[in-house]
Amino acid sequence: MTVVDDVRHAILALRQEVCDLHEQLTRYQLVVWTAGNVSARVPGRDLLVIKPSGVSYDDLAPDNMVVCDLHGRVVEGEHAPSSDTEAQAHVYREMPEVGGVVHTHSTYATAWAARGEPVPCVLTMGADEFGGEIPVGPFAVIGDDSIGRGIVETLRGSRSPAVLMRNHGVFTVGATARAAVKAAVMCEDVARTVHVSRQLGVPVPIEQHHVDALFDRYQNVYGQR
Amino acid sequence: MTVVDDVRHAILALRQEVCDLHEQLTRYQLVVWTAGNVSARVPGRDLLVIKPSGVSYDDLAPDNMVVCDLHGRVVEGEHAPSSDTEAQAHVYREMPEVGGVVHTHSTYATAWAARGEPVPCVLTMGADEFGGEIPVGPFAVIGDDSIGRGIVETLRGSRSPAVLMRNHGVFTVGATARAAVKAAVMCEDVARTVHVSRQLGVPVPIEQHHVDALFDRYQNVYGQR
Amino acid sequence: MTVVDDVRHAILALRQEVCDLHEQLTRYQLVVWTAGNVSARVPGRDLLVIKPSGVSYDDLAPDNMVVCDLHGRVVEGEHAPSSDTEAQAHVYREMPEVGGVVHTHSTYATAWAARGEPVPCVLTMGADEFGGEIPVGPFAVIGDDSIGRGIVETLRGSRSPAVLMRNHGVFTVGATARAAVKAAVMCEDVARTVHVSRQLGVPVPIEQHHVDALFDRYQNVYGQR
Amino acid sequence: MTVVDDVRHAILALRQEVCDLHEQLTRYQLVVWTAGNVSARVPGRDLLVIKPSGVSYDDLAPDNMVVCDLHGRVVEGEHAPSSDTEAQAHVYREMPEVGGVVHTHSTYATAWAARGEPVPCVLTMGADEFGGEIPVGPFAVIGDDSIGRGIVETLRGSRSPAVLMRNHGVFTVGATARAAVKAAVMCEDVARTVHVSRQLGVPVPIEQHHVDALFDRYQNVYGQR
Repeated sequence: MTVVDDVRHAILALRQEVCDLHEQLTRYQLVVWTAGNVSARVPGRDLLVIKPSGVSYDDLAPDNMVVCDLHGRVVEGEHAPSSDTEAQAHVYREMPEVGGVVHTHSTYATAWAARGEPVPCVLTMGADEFGGEIPVGPFAVIGDDSIGRGIVETLRGSRSPAVLMRNHGVFTVGATARAAVKAAVMCEDVARTVHVSRQLGVPVPIEQHHVDALFDRYQNVYGQR
Repeated sequence: MTVVDDVRHAILALRQEVCDLHEQLTRYQLVVWTAGNVSARVPGRDLLVIKPSGVSYDDLAPDNMVVCDLHGRVVEGEHAPSSDTEAQAHVYREMPEVGGVVHTHSTYATAWAARGEPVPCVLTMGADEFGGEIPVGPFAVIGDDSIGRGIVETLRGSRSPAVLMRNHGVFTVGATARAAVKAAVMCEDVARTVHVSRQLGVPVPIEQHHVDALFDRYQNVYGQR
Repeated sequence: MTVVDDVRHAILALRQEVCDLHEQLTRYQLVVWTAGNVSARVPGRDLLVIKPSGVSYDDLAPDNMVVCDLHGRVVEGEHAPSSDTEAQAHVYREMPEVGGVVHTHSTYATAWAARGEPVPCVLTMGADEFGGEIPVGPFAVIGDDSIGRGIVETLRGSRSPAVLMRNHGVFTVGATARAAVKAAVMCEDVARTVHVSRQLGVPVPIEQHHVDALFDRYQNVYGQR
Repeated sequence: MTVVDDVRHAILALRQEVCDLHEQLTRYQLVVWTAGNVSARVPGRDLLVIKPSGVSYDDLAPDNMVVCDLHGRVVEGEHAPSSDTEAQAHVYREMPEVGGVVHTHSTYATAWAARGEPVPCVLTMGADEFGGEIPVGPFAVIGDDSIGRGIVETLRGSRSPAVLMRNHGVFTVGATARAAVKAAVMCEDVARTVHVSRQLGVPVPIEQHHVDALFDRYQNVYGQR
């Protein structure tokens, strides 16, 4: 099998995986209509696979996923890619450890983002997954790399795989597209629970050394090895 | 094929489309029981296709959709049309660019409507879809054209395809019935997220020139061309 | 066909109908686990058909519905009837126009009930279905006819088919079991929307003559004739 | 059939039951991703059956459930058990009447837990199922038996089968795994309804003698005998 065949196989597999992962966004009601997407890096290549722009989740198929280079230019596919492609390409360029990116406007996380307020770490689930508060990134216009730059700057100063872009919505990253989807699911769950808790009073903070211990255990012990 | 055949084909296709679009209203939980409906204009004709009154979403079929003229009188169909028909007919008469109208009592949008308060534009999604705040129309009784007049007067002064009728619910318009359904989905999503954000403080406003740029890009660049 | 056959056929049909209507309670998330039920009067007989006590909605079948007399004593069926049977039997005894009763603990309606506060009429949907506010009934213990008496006393002074029993939940009535289910669905929808509206301010009242006109139209014009 | 065969049959049946009960956690939206689990005691043996750690609910099968002793050590199964195993094993060791344990981070219950505030008994459903308020347990780190000790200490001073572990989530117990799942469903329902009620005012308390009577009736009369 040639190197070209290898890449071809990787892209075919990622078209399927990226397509399928959108089912988790609808299942957990993180998105409405066409407003959210998943992408994945093609391992070892300066390429990404992403949702087409404005296509209904019901109509997604491996075939209509779009392959782009890391400047957001279409390399393969008959559809225009997500309007978030340039932002996500920037993340892949600047953060080589990232293998997947997800964007949603999930309700509770976006509500914190609209106030420009990070979600405080008052739940063990928040410490586990985000290692502290879920941070807020800057307001940025859509369509060039300002969103990408805002994401990278914010995540570099944080243990969190999720950033709340001000007045906009959520971007999450992960070693794989699946991990980024998980972070998007957990982000909304934590944002919602802390919101509800704050409605009737002040949640008890978790001491920093407990946050650190929880984060460390979850990253290193939880799940199957 | 004669002109009459043409109209017959258009009506058959719209019966199917209008019927099917109601699935999006239930999927996004914008309606309960029978309280909401979709209509479409028959292109080039003074006719509309609309849901029958008080019929369960489970029992909708292309056959029981009702064809009316633009004064709300039944032209074809064995059922009484939606009690909103006169209001929607008025919209089609007065706004020739409108090809579809949707009515819901979706929870969060209707909650703003009950206070007579527009939904402020504090989310990029609000700027994209509504080009500013989602406006409030007057209180109007059901059954004559006062609702229709209230919708038209309010939408004419706004870029928004959605209007919150005071103490009542949401009406949305679009170039097609599908576009009007999309506006109804986005209206509830924006109304809900801004509501949740406001529960714990004050969302950061988006500057007007950013609202304008977002609206322009979304109307002209987003999606497939 | 003898009179006995007639009753037998009516009971068989009602076993199916009452069983099936529970699907609407789960679909609209008005109930969890086994906490809610539907009953129907056997027309012209001092009998009712009701859900068995503590049986999961997944396991309901026409066969396990229970037939009781209007004092709540089992006439036909191998299961114990709902623990609300005595309350509902009282309603059928005292209100001959009632053909169906529904009980839920739906979240928002029960939240108003826990404060002992009626849901004000600030939505056209509230005027349509309830003809004014949704009233609160007294606190009553479960298992004898105090709940039934509280329901009847409250509904007799109101146009509403729904009553919020204090600290407990919702009871609705209708000419048929289906109409009572509809009232339960609308009750939660109105209770939720008014709750959400009140969270950020004061909803605008609807003038009494408008409430009267809306109620009259909805009872007499809406739906198929 | 030998004693060994008996145990083998009991374990096979519990693998199926524990696996299936997770469907109730997702159905009632008590869990997201992999964050919650069910376990059952093997009757008459110092063994329990529990969900594997970090495995998606879609991928659960009787085969991948894990059998552990009551110190949380794997006895049978190819997967690592839930990271809550040690906590739940402690509960089975200390509370011989407990046959099932459930853990969730359900939103409203966890919101009360984040404030360290018990859910007051202002609903008949709360009196029925919990016999009073739903109590709060201490903050405890994950991975040793501190959570287990916190659960046992809190439940011993209460009639409630549910405990809100501070900043963490919910643990429930029952005579069977199914009863513990029911308690988890009811806990979230009561926590949500009381939360919503409190948002707009103060729920009316239920007098203690009524709470006692409701609890007694529900434990002894409700359901099928």
